[in-house]
Amino acid sequence: MIFTGDELLRGDILNTNQAWLGERLLDMGIFATHALSVTDDLDQMAEALRDSLRRRPDLVVLSGGLGPTEDDLTREAVSLALGRPLELHEDLIEAIQARFARLGMTMHATNRKQALIPAGATPIPFTGTAPGFWVDHEGTVVAALPGVPRELKQMWTEYLAPVMTARLAADAPTGGDEAAVEAGGVLVRKLRLFGIGESAVAEALLDLPWRGSEVDLGTRASLEGLTLILRTHPTAEARAELDQREAQVRAILGERIYGTGDDDLATVLGALLRERGLTVCTAESCTGGLIAKHLTDTAGSSDYFLGGVVSYSNRLKTELLGVDETLLTEHGAVSEPVAAAMARGAQESLGADCAIAVTGIAGPGGGTPEKPVGLVYIGTSLGGEVRVERFVMFTTRDEIRERTAQTGLDLLRRRLLSETRV
Amino acid sequence: MIFTGDELLRGDILNTNQAWLGERLLDMGIFATHALSVTDDLDQMAEALRDSLRRRPDLVVLSGGLGPTEDDLTREAVSLALGRPLELHEDLIEAIQARFARLGMTMHATNRKQALIPAGATPIPFTGTAPGFWVDHEGTVVAALPGVPRELKQMWTEYLAPVMTARLAADAPTGGDEAAVEAGGVLVRKLRLFGIGESAVAEALLDLPWRGSEVDLGTRASLEGLTLILRTHPTAEARAELDQREAQVRAILGERIYGTGDDDLATVLGALLRERGLTVCTAESCTGGLIAKHLTDTAGSSDYFLGGVVSYSNRLKTELLGVDETLLTEHGAVSEPVAAAMARGAQESLGADCAIAVTGIAGPGGGTPEKPVGLVYIGTSLGGEVRVERFVMFTTRDEIRERTAQTGLDLLRRRLLSETRV
Repeated sequence: MIFTGDELLRGDILNTNQAWLGERLLDMGIFATHALSVTDDLDQMAEALRDSLRRRPDLVVLSGGLGPTEDDLTREAVSLALGRPLELHEDLIEAIQARFARLGMTMHATNRKQALIPAGATPIPFTGTAPGFWVDHEGTVVAALPGVPRELKQMWTEYLAPVMTARLAADAPTGGDEAAVEAGGVLVRKLRLFGIGESAVAEALLDLPWRGSEVDLGTRASLEGLTLILRTHPTAEARAELDQREAQVRAILGERIYGTGDDDLATVLGALLRERGLTVCTAESCTGGLIAKHLTDTAGSSDYFLGGVVSYSNRLKTELLGVDETLLTEHGAVSEPVAAAMARGAQESLGADCAIAVTGIAGPGGGTPEKPVGLVYIGTSLGGEVRVERFVMFTTRDEIRERTAQTGLDLLRRRLLSETRV
Repeated sequence: MIFTGDELLRGDILNTNQAWLGERLLDMGIFATHALSVTDDLDQMAEALRDSLRRRPDLVVLSGGLGPTEDDLTREAVSLALGRPLELHEDLIEAIQARFARLGMTMHATNRKQALIPAGATPIPFTGTAPGFWVDHEGTVVAALPGVPRELKQMWTEYLAPVMTARLAADAPTGGDEAAVEAGGVLVRKLRLFGIGESAVAEALLDLPWRGSEVDLGTRASLEGLTLILRTHPTAEARAELDQREAQVRAILGERIYGTGDDDLATVLGALLRERGLTVCTAESCTGGLIAKHLTDTAGSSDYFLGGVVSYSNRLKTELLGVDETLLTEHGAVSEPVAAAMARGAQESLGADCAIAVTGIAGPGGGTPEKPVGLVYIGTSLGGEVRVERFVMFTTRDEIRERTAQTGLDLLRRRLLSETRV
C-alpha cells in the first residue's frame, strides 16, 4: 500500500485508509507486508512504486494524488515507474463533465488531467471526484484509488475487490466446496463481546486446547468492547474445526457475545427491540446525549427510539423526568436513587416500554473522596421494573462517557435477552 | 519513520504514532518524507532501514519491536542493516530487573535480550517496558523507540527531541533572536473556519500576493470545518510577514474564523456563552443528541449547558417542547415552522437563554421529492427571537448528522457575536 499526501506525514490527519484496506485485504487472504506514506513528490512516489514492484507482490494499491491540482502526481508517478505513457481518455472527460453538470457547475480546464491514464490501464468507474485506474504490470496489479476515504472504500468494495477475488480464484487450486471469495483466502469469524476484559476471556478459554489447532485466535480491544477473531485456512477440514471452536467459545462466553462481524451494541439492541415490538427512551446526565446519538446512528431507529432527555441541570431532572427534589438534596445527583428515578421518570413521561438512564462524574473536575471522577450509576427500566448498577471507571473524560454509554446499551440488551421473549 | 508490527498492516489498530511524530518533527523543522509500516520480519525490516539510509536523511526513527518476544526484531534488524553487532549492556539488565522488582515480579530470562544494543549505540532511559537506543550512523541519527504510544511519546519528548534540537542548532547558521527550539524550526499558525468551502476561501484570498511570499498557505477540510495553515521560516523577517498575512486573512474572512490551533466549535461557543453569562439548551431530531454530546465534550460545560431534548417522535415534540400539533400535521416534522417552534419551545420549557433546534432527514430512507434526504432546518433562539435556516446536504447519514450539528453550533456562535455584548 502506498499513500501519498504530505498531510499524512505532517500529522494533519490519521491514515485510516491503511487500517481499513489492511483489514479488507486480510479478509480475502492478502497479507499486506508494507504500507508506505510518501510525500507529494514525483520522484519519491515513482521510486516507492519501483521499490514495491521489486518485491513482486500480487497487488500494489496507491491511494491519493488523483485530484486536479499540481500536487496530484499519482498518474505521472505510475506512468514514470511503469514506463507507460499517459493517454487521454475522452470518455473520462465526459464523465467528469457530467459530474460537474449534476452539481450545476462547469468543468475547470485543470480537471482535464484527471482523464489521463497510463497506457494499458483500465479506468475505474467513479461516483466521487476522481477516476481511479488499474493495470496488470508483469503479474502485479497496480491500482490507483482516491485518498478520500468514502471514495476509496466504494471503489475498492464495488470494483477492485471483485477484480482481486477473481484473480485469486483463478490462481487457486480448483475443487472443493468453498465459495470463490474464499478460494485464495482466509476464513475469518469475528465475535463481538462486551463486559469482559481480555485477560478474563483468555482465562475463560484456557481449557480449550488451542495448541496444535489450525484455528488462530486473536483479540482486539476498544471502548465498544472486545472482538474475538478466529482465523483459519479455507479448507473443509479447517472450516469444521472453526465451527467447532466457535460453538465452544459461544458455550463458554454466552450472552457476553452480543454480535458478529462489525456489529455494534446500539444496532444489536435496536434489532432486539424491533423483534419484540418495544420502544426505548433515554435520560442522560454525564453522557450528555451520547446514548441517544448511538441509538440514532442506525437508520430506521425511529421505529423503536422515541427520544431522550439530556438533563444536565438538576432542575431538568425534576421538571422533565419528575425526579423528586428531596432525592437530589439527600443523595446528590450522582446516586443510585436518582439513577432509578431518572429511568422510571423517563419511561413514564416519554411513554416508552423501556429506558436507559445515566448519572455520573465524567471529570476531570467535580470528584470528591466519596464520589470520585469515574463514578457512574446506570439505571434500566423494563416493564416498569427498574434496576441500577454502579461502576467506577479509572480513565479519561471521553472514555468514561463512551464506556458508560456502551455499558448502558449492554445492560438493557442483557435484560431484554433474559426477561423478554419474542 | 519505520513502524513495525503486523497489527498495523492487518488494520487491527490505527497508526497514531505516525501522525503524532510527524507533527512533532515538523514543529522542529524536520519534514518527514517517508513513513513505512512493515511486517515483523527481520529481512524486510533490515531492508526497509537500508532503503531509508540510502536517501541520507537527518533522522530515521524506528518504532516498535523492542519487546522480549520472538516477534520483537528491531534490535537485530538495526544490527543487520548497519553492520553493528549486538552488545549486552549489564547496566540495562539491572534497569530491567529494577523495573520488575518495582512491580513485585521477577525478571524473565527472555527479557535479557532487551539489554542488547548495536555497537556504538546509546541506550535511551526508559520508564515503560522497553529500553530504546540511538546511534549516529554516517551522519544519520538512527533511533529505536517503543511502539506503545505513551512510551514513544515520553522517550521522544524527554530524550530524543532535545538530542535532535541540539544537532539542528549546531547545523543552523548562528545569530538572530529566535529561541533555540526554532533554530531549525517552522513557525505555524492555524486558523479554524466554518461555513465556507476550500474553493471559496481560495477565491477570497486570491487578491493577496502569495507568489514570492515567504509564507506558505495550506488548507485542511473536515466535517468540523476548514483549517487554514500558515507556515514560514523562524526568522524575524518571516515572522513579521506571517503576522501581516494573518491580519490580512482575518480582515477578509472575518467571523468565519472561529478559532485557532485545535479549537472546536462547541468549545468556542461555550466560551462565548460563559463570557456573556448565558445558558443554552438543545432540541434535536435528526442529530439525535449529537449537539448535546458535542457541547458536553468540554469539561465544565454544565456552567452554560442546561440540557436538551431528543425529540425523535412527533409526540415528544408536542409534549416536551410544546410544538403545536397543527404545525406538525400542516407542515410536517421537517419544516421551517416546526424548527422555529422547537427552538422557542426548548428555550422556554428548559428555561435557557438560548437554544439550538434541529429537524431534518438524515436518510438513507425517508426522503421524498419535496423533502429529500439531506434537507435540514436549523433554528436558533436568542433573547426570545427565533431564526431558522434551511440546508440541503448531499452526503451520507453520518456526515449529514455531523455537519448539521456543527452548523447549529456555528449559527448560534455567529448570532452571539453580532447580537450580544460581553
